[in-house]
Amino acid sequence: MRIALDAMGGDRGPEELVSGALLAVRDTDVEVALVGDETVLRSVLRGKGVAEGPRLAVVHASQIVEMSENAVDAIRKKKDSSVLVACDLVARGETAAVVSAGHSGATLAAAMRKLGRLEGVSRPGLASFFPTLKKPVVLMDIGGNVDCRPHHLLQFAIMAAAFSSIHQRENPRIGLLTIGEEAGKGNALIRETYPLLAKSSLNFIGNIEGRDIFQGDVDVVVCDGFVGNVCLKISEGLAEAAMRMIGDEIRESLWTKLGYLLVKPAFRAFKKRVDYSEYGGAPILGIDGVGLVCHGKSDAVAIKNAILVANKMVTGGVNERIRREISGVPVSETDDE
Amino acid sequence: MRIALDAMGGDRGPEELVSGALLAVRDTDVEVALVGDETVLRSVLRGKGVAEGPRLAVVHASQIVEMSENAVDAIRKKKDSSVLVACDLVARGETAAVVSAGHSGATLAAAMRKLGRLEGVSRPGLASFFPTLKKPVVLMDIGGNVDCRPHHLLQFAIMAAAFSSIHQRENPRIGLLTIGEEAGKGNALIRETYPLLAKSSLNFIGNIEGRDIFQGDVDVVVCDGFVGNVCLKISEGLAEAAMRMIGDEIRESLWTKLGYLLVKPAFRAFKKRVDYSEYGGAPILGIDGVGLVCHGKSDAVAIKNAILVANKMVTGGVNERIRREISGVPVSETDDE
Repeated sequence: MRIALDAMGGDRGPEELVSGALLAVRDTDVEVALVGDETVLRSVLRGKGVAEGPRLAVVHASQIVEMSENAVDAIRKKKDSSVLVACDLVARGETAAVVSAGHSGATLAAAMRKLGRLEGVSRPGLASFFPTLKKPVVLMDIGGNVDCRPHHLLQFAIMAAAFSSIHQRENPRIGLLTIGEEAGKGNALIRETYPLLAKSSLNFIGNIEGRDIFQGDVDVVVCDGFVGNVCLKISEGLAEAAMRMIGDEIRESLWTKLGYLLVKPAFRAFKKRVDYSEYGGAPILGIDGVGLVCHGKSDAVAIKNAILVANKMVTGGVNERIRREISGVPVSETDDE
Repeated sequence: MRIALDAMGGDRGPEELVSGALLAVRDTDVEVALVGDETVLRSVLRGKGVAEGPRLAVVHASQIVEMSENAVDAIRKKKDSSVLVACDLVARGETAAVVSAGHSGATLAAAMRKLGRLEGVSRPGLASFFPTLKKPVVLMDIGGNVDCRPHHLLQFAIMAAAFSSIHQRENPRIGLLTIGEEAGKGNALIRETYPLLAKSSLNFIGNIEGRDIFQGDVDVVVCDGFVGNVCLKISEGLAEAAMRMIGDEIRESLWTKLGYLLVKPAFRAFKKRVDYSEYGGAPILGIDGVGLVCHGKSDAVAIKNAILVANKMVTGGVNERIRREISGVPVSETDDE
């Protein structure tokens, strides 16, 4: 099993990304193709005292998509960018999956261009783990698709359910994110999606409110990409703000400062529990291949975890599951866009 | 200034609500009309050793809207429910505003039925304060309107800006909640709303992402009622879950337990900072009168604060501001629904 890593993307630079690949190669039997500027990558490997070899190879790509670029333009113009070359390795069957912590829009665009959609999928999307009081849930879509129709949400449910199978969740419980528990509650999209989910063969448990997500009583939460992305960003922002507010209060007195030294391990454990990097990136679901988008801030551990998730998605046959399930739900011609 | 309080609504019952009214009457010069079952309310007053009088009067209403009821049905059938009678007091000019911690949907429906829309307003909605690292921001809409058109969002911005004036915010900064900073980012609704806000006379500062809300660099955040309500519920759920997760970790060892005793004041200060009850309920904006919906869990302090906010909305002429601003933005016939 070989996985392509876009070794130039991400806020922390190639050093950190290569460290992540090293961790993955050391801890498991995956092989990693480091894609990017070969001079830079070989110098990083030398600096770490690691020899290039079949388990950790360098594949040259001369260009980088910058975070400030327009995703679609960049992918059209930069034919030799690390993310496009990495996706191309998957398209040509040289690697089984691609992982990138670079420009997420560009990664999505590159994956779509090189790999295309899985048969029967109307719109590929991004899924993400979301921490809860019990096990993390899978939330989909979180950004790709801002204006959705009911059958798109049905397909997100099918794809996210297939993905959640890599965590030994068979027959995962599916919830539809809305603002009331009864079937009639929500906006037009939600009201029309509800009956589609209800009559599907999925284990649909009904509507779920934002507040209930954290109880961890569902495995998959379905929403459109606008709502999903807002939820994710609100949660990130709130968690950061809460930590800063509590920090401000703690610095108010010597006693609270002293107390903080003692509770610090609890805070650290909490942070680890909600840390995105533990979950190994966001899978692009619905493409004809395996791809993962990592947070720009990803450290070596996050990259390693993403490589392991990619590995599990391939060995677990997530795409075969998606293809099988989607083919059971015919989509009308007019709806298929 | 007299304000009607639905003294039967809310999870904590009439005792707590009457206590809130008492606090308001003691601390300020407002008068409160307690609306509900007169036998119950007089017995509560007696229990507290308080005499009924012009500053704290009881107005009888024989029915209660239960939390489990359908809002519209309940308002149609229960003509003598406390929330309808309270709204009727405003309609007849006997009180200047209404406050209820009961069924929020029923409160909205009752206010709409008895008070109607303000001239020029397409859709009344609910606004709410949202805690940030700086001052709280006003978020609108948070639940009334799930399927919106661009001019509805423009009107929400105008109404929320007028409301924020009661907190001495002149020319408040308005942000449009979406999933990217540039003008073209978001779903169709957001992309079409952006130019309306940009050409309005409002102090529109552009798109804002969920994560940035907590920085407190805007005064008003505009979104549709579906997204707003999901944001509010996600935030509530996350804050509760975070507290429980940290609590779990703290109970892991004796040292962290000891440390917790020392940092407790910091946690308490944090909780107070993010506590909805400090902000005094969610104003119904766009109706021809002043109404506030409180959280069902509201305690006496929350009720007192809501009464004070209602008072400020009346004295600050929020509705006159809304009427003036809305009349400057003509809405096309076809759009006006």
